[in-house]
Amino acid sequence: MQIMINEIKNWIKEASELIKKEIAKNDMTVDTKEGRRDLVTNVDKQVQDFLIEQMNTFDPEAKILGEENGRDHLEDFSGRVFVIDPIDGTLNFVLEQENFCIMIAVYEEGQGKLGFIYNVMEDLLLWGGKEIGVFINEESLTTPPDLALKDGLVGMNSGMYRKNSYNAQLMAERSMGVRMSGCAGLELIDLIKGNHNAYVSTLAPWDYAAGSIMVEALGMKFSNINGSSLKFDGREHFIAATPTAYEEMMDLVAQAKN
Amino acid sequence: MQIMINEIKNWIKEASELIKKEIAKNDMTVDTKEGRRDLVTNVDKQVQDFLIEQMNTFDPEAKILGEENGRDHLEDFSGRVFVIDPIDGTLNFVLEQENFCIMIAVYEEGQGKLGFIYNVMEDLLLWGGKEIGVFINEESLTTPPDLALKDGLVGMNSGMYRKNSYNAQLMAERSMGVRMSGCAGLELIDLIKGNHNAYVSTLAPWDYAAGSIMVEALGMKFSNINGSSLKFDGREHFIAATPTAYEEMMDLVAQAKN
Repeated sequence: MQIMINEIKNWIKEASELIKKEIAKNDMTVDTKEGRRDLVTNVDKQVQDFLIEQMNTFDPEAKILGEENGRDHLEDFSGRVFVIDPIDGTLNFVLEQENFCIMIAVYEEGQGKLGFIYNVMEDLLLWGGKEIGVFINEESLTTPPDLALKDGLVGMNSGMYRKNSYNAQLMAERSMGVRMSGCAGLELIDLIKGNHNAYVSTLAPWDYAAGSIMVEALGMKFSNINGSSLKFDGREHFIAATPTAYEEMMDLVAQAKN
Repeated sequence: MQIMINEIKNWIKEASELIKKEIAKNDMTVDTKEGRRDLVTNVDKQVQDFLIEQMNTFDPEAKILGEENGRDHLEDFSGRVFVIDPIDGTLNFVLEQENFCIMIAVYEEGQGKLGFIYNVMEDLLLWGGKEIGVFINEESLTTPPDLALKDGLVGMNSGMYRKNSYNAQLMAERSMGVRMSGCAGLELIDLIKGNHNAYVSTLAPWDYAAGSIMVEALGMKFSNINGSSLKFDGREHFIAATPTAYEEMMDLVAQAKN
């Protein structure tokens, strides 16, 4: 596993250099996908192509699920699967040139093995898994305190908050406050570091894969907001939290249905 | 003015060292003020006391308005006034030990002269004013592009968004997205850098003083959300934005009233 970890770290480092060069060139091509806020740039595509090339060289048998270039669906999760988000937070990338992440996850026979979330402009890498623990750069992370909902900050999707989906407003009301960063990777970093005690959003597989592996490795909880396993196919309502906040929030979800 | 700028930078540097030492000691005293989310720590008070001491030594005639220790009201804005927020984003400071700022503003005869916002843990200082321009650390900042509402990100107060105060939800809907950081200083940094094109919140004078001086210096707009001047007394609804987004948002505020 150590060889693969070192490989992936190198891919991420090279990908981030590629991104920084493109920012410096300042001639990005921005297109929309499923709406005016759903952006993709030539850089997202280039980074995904670069990562896929590395993955194919490293393990030609591995399957790949990725946000861009028509790689966004996978039937068969047997063997090794890499899940890629080349640039998570593309809107931030385009408008801020910061507050975006590269994310890679490794699954083996359907089990999450390794997750990597890299905050490119802050040079902050969270990585790890159940077998090796979780690290922030090279420093080992301990499980954050099991904060109750009332004692922590909740990362939340703006649409779910506005529409009060699944009692989202009550979750926010009972917490110490809501935070919205526009980047699933940053929200999951905040949960994993213990800055936040929960995260609720509408996510695609490449948004939650890497983070949920580390969330689980640290003994925290994640699932579809209905409590079921994530489908790894299309967007779904996602929740991740400390064990105590997770139970409290699932109670609020259940109340919202009645 | 250069002597005062250098002095203030030194105070901020010393204050940030004091804060980092207190974080390392890890025995902060946290109290609530006007509600369970309105926190104050011994560190907020110590930092304010330290800054006031420096200000009194530098200019014994200057008046001081500050968030803590009963310094939160000032009748007379003649002469020189220092406005202090020793730790802006105390909730983040307590829960995250990052994402908070030190803010200092200097007014002379009621006119904003200098603003300083320091993101302590990122070592990022935004400072400047109308006469000298605005700087990020030692690099000169140019006026951000005059983005329309639809082309940028809006920093927003969660309560105003949830309650749709002044058509806040429509502002968000028309923008590229909302962001919530829990720290006025960070939101104003994002506006000043051009990461965001607007910021709407409920703020006290020490929250908006430093930022609004730099916003104005860069040719952007700010006011009470009704378009009137800020009162520098108690909390009020605050808006700051690029000129174009400001006009669009004020139209939405006017529509909300009809």
